[in-house]
Amino acid sequence: MKPGHSLIKHYLQFKDLRAEEYAYLFDRARVIKTRFKNYERYQPLVDRTLAMIFEKASTRTRVSFEAGMYQMGGSVVHLTTGDSQLGRAEPIEDSARVISRMVDVVMIRTYEQAKLELFAAHSRVPVINGLTNEYHPCQILADIFTYIEHRGPRVGGGEALECLKGKVVAWVGDGNNMANTWLQAAEALGFTVHVSTPGGYEVDPELAGIRDSSCYRVFNHPLEACEGAHLVTTDVWTSMGYEAENEERRKAFVDWCVDDEMMGVAQPDALFMHCLPAHRGEEVTAEVIDGPQSVVWDEAENRMHVQKALMEYLLLGRIG
Amino acid sequence: MKPGHSLIKHYLQFKDLRAEEYAYLFDRARVIKTRFKNYERYQPLVDRTLAMIFEKASTRTRVSFEAGMYQMGGSVVHLTTGDSQLGRAEPIEDSARVISRMVDVVMIRTYEQAKLELFAAHSRVPVINGLTNEYHPCQILADIFTYIEHRGPRVGGGEALECLKGKVVAWVGDGNNMANTWLQAAEALGFTVHVSTPGGYEVDPELAGIRDSSCYRVFNHPLEACEGAHLVTTDVWTSMGYEAENEERRKAFVDWCVDDEMMGVAQPDALFMHCLPAHRGEEVTAEVIDGPQSVVWDEAENRMHVQKALMEYLLLGRIG
Amino acid sequence: MKPGHSLIKHYLQFKDLRAEEYAYLFDRARVIKTRFKNYERYQPLVDRTLAMIFEKASTRTRVSFEAGMYQMGGSVVHLTTGDSQLGRAEPIEDSARVISRMVDVVMIRTYEQAKLELFAAHSRVPVINGLTNEYHPCQILADIFTYIEHRGPRVGGGEALECLKGKVVAWVGDGNNMANTWLQAAEALGFTVHVSTPGGYEVDPELAGIRDSSCYRVFNHPLEACEGAHLVTTDVWTSMGYEAENEERRKAFVDWCVDDEMMGVAQPDALFMHCLPAHRGEEVTAEVIDGPQSVVWDEAENRMHVQKALMEYLLLGRIG
Repeated sequence: MKPGHSLIKHYLQFKDLRAEEYAYLFDRARVIKTRFKNYERYQPLVDRTLAMIFEKASTRTRVSFEAGMYQMGGSVVHLTTGDSQLGRAEPIEDSARVISRMVDVVMIRTYEQAKLELFAAHSRVPVINGLTNEYHPCQILADIFTYIEHRGPRVGGGEALECLKGKVVAWVGDGNNMANTWLQAAEALGFTVHVSTPGGYEVDPELAGIRDSSCYRVFNHPLEACEGAHLVTTDVWTSMGYEAENEERRKAFVDWCVDDEMMGVAQPDALFMHCLPAHRGEEVTAEVIDGPQSVVWDEAENRMHVQKALMEYLLLGRIG
Repeated sequence: MKPGHSLIKHYLQFKDLRAEEYAYLFDRARVIKTRFKNYERYQPLVDRTLAMIFEKASTRTRVSFEAGMYQMGGSVVHLTTGDSQLGRAEPIEDSARVISRMVDVVMIRTYEQAKLELFAAHSRVPVINGLTNEYHPCQILADIFTYIEHRGPRVGGGEALECLKGKVVAWVGDGNNMANTWLQAAEALGFTVHVSTPGGYEVDPELAGIRDSSCYRVFNHPLEACEGAHLVTTDVWTSMGYEAENEERRKAFVDWCVDDEMMGVAQPDALFMHCLPAHRGEEVTAEVIDGPQSVVWDEAENRMHVQKALMEYLLLGRIG
Repeated sequence: MKPGHSLIKHYLQFKDLRAEEYAYLFDRARVIKTRFKNYERYQPLVDRTLAMIFEKASTRTRVSFEAGMYQMGGSVVHLTTGDSQLGRAEPIEDSARVISRMVDVVMIRTYEQAKLELFAAHSRVPVINGLTNEYHPCQILADIFTYIEHRGPRVGGGEALECLKGKVVAWVGDGNNMANTWLQAAEALGFTVHVSTPGGYEVDPELAGIRDSSCYRVFNHPLEACEGAHLVTTDVWTSMGYEAENEERRKAFVDWCVDDEMMGVAQPDALFMHCLPAHRGEEVTAEVIDGPQSVVWDEAENRMHVQKALMEYLLLGRIG
């Protein structure tokens, strides 16, 4: 940490930051993205090193964090399971103590949130959740930034969050880490999530970690969830780590495919998002994901920019 | 791409660039190599990131691209098959769309040229062929630069290609991606390839992608191919991916071993090259590869320098 | 190498450097660590690339070398066995010739010291031992620096080594690469090692490579070795690569567990060190490793700082 930074701030769940911090982050992400697009060099993290620990493979998280850190002038050490399975060769506490002596920030993609929390509790430097079974806050950060970019005010100044008030996000599919995180985001930022999952795959508000149940509504049929939605979003039927349930899930999820009918009942200018990789013909039709309402490629790119803003904030605090 | 760059230029086959572009590239490679040898810092690619995607393992391609990018001031994200097998988790088109949003240039080592072409067609940034079953243009770029370095004019100025006119390159061995690329190079730059392969391993001019068959001649016996050659070159009997044919190939290729007799019928100042790794006693004798006509270590180092020149050109266009 | 550097200096064993060079290195490590702690940018190795070759997995060596190189402004190419098993695809001599044409320094973690020596003999750039079956000089470099940091003079000036004279280091456990290297260090720097290993796991002074046997004493019982020691140190019962002997070793080593009794007979201000990962309840009790005499986290961090000083010295010679 920089001298003067009195407390380490981690980013383990969406609710770890307050609304005003999100307003700041989205403003910074806009500035940082603009500089990137204009080829203006901006390297506030020269001398800083990010350790990335992957227990699950990844392309998007890998490239977005790594290229993002390079663009900010920093460096990256990429550790995969083969190199260092957390908790195998040594207690996680020891890994956290050692690694956090050598680098400036740590990103972890693992299975159990508890592992991540344990690492963070013994780390001297900020720890970022790069995906756990329970939460995926960096992805939702990107999704909300992408919504603001397409439907929010054209300039910054902290009012970015205003465009979210009263909006409806339709979550169609698995009540997974993405769904949990959407609920936390809705509670934190003042919008509503309409959730529709197959039976047996419901979202668990306790696991989701929300206190105010008014931030979401549950619908049996995905079409109902999409009605009037400003944003329709989904995820693969079978997330990494659940491949054994693949056949069972294919049957259960067959009606949870975002198609033109669902988009047709949403707001006329509703956006479609997907954290990718996508399986066309399963959770979404090609018409929707490759159609005019889809912003999935911007969404993917924005992972990088919001994460740059996040790392800047966790390492340097507020700029200026 | 830099603002002002109107078209994306890929490097997927040797014939993707014209002779005048090669003349420029070889001049730049000379300048860049000289700076490296003199420890003069030259970092035009600060802020730029290279993604390397490897579906086949590699040491030379890996180190030459990665170290080369660092020397130019840039950064590298290294993706291996384990992380991201192209076309497995998602369509190649989607991978291209996502990755090319986050980095500035992509190098791919894969099996089918078609995969590479598909990626490039959906990429927003330049794509470089780091080896396919069909072609290996970066290696031939290095080989020709090495020839010019040893037998061409001492200074630049675009006349580097003159020293190639009318020269003979003897290709002894498998009619593989290297042989195909030599044919493209001969057609583009005005020299002749004398090819000698075992029966069943002939070069296929259609696959090689040449229009003018006068750029090469086929010989039954390798000794005939070497006669009067200015450069003798070969490759391993069994390239990566063909290990199942190993035994069969060992029998077929037994006479395709570059030895002192072959070098003896070539020009007195002929050079010997090999893209490495080499198997002494198989495709080449120790006497030849470790002898005075061999320039294989310069050739290996030059991979790095020509690739630096190539990335500079694809990303920044002509300098000055 | 930098122009003017007439000889390549490798670091393959502890005895490769002389006492006065160690005095210099420890002074530099102190300066470099202080700058790191104060967020003072110090990047003397911009433009320089480190290749790391791992045939054994590693977290600590990986992160300490990689993050250290980045902090010094340099870059890193990380090669694992999958990419490039030394001596498999090509003779080690060829790998050394090629890789050392492209990078500025090479770190190798392998099994046989002979492989490392062979690589170094054909390398154009400095080679560093990142662990072999025989030696682990970078770890002992860190350990001695940590001792000096805690028990030596507060300022530099070359007298750092004075605090080692006549001191006793107790080695409790396997007569392995760490033990061998402690013996070399004792001979080079003027202290004594008290060694206690189970029967069958003795240290071999010939393998250890020392000439003067007065630098160490052997004890049957670990308690005797610890008596009066200024530093007590141990390692896991079963090092990587010896897993097949695991059961046998668990029986043999059962009394070689550093506990409060052993620390109680050492000097009152004795330090405890461990190169990690540690198995609490096996080679050391939780009370000792997590107690007030343990400096294992400083020791781990110091790997990074001494290695930065080492790379600076091997690449740039003496500064100022």
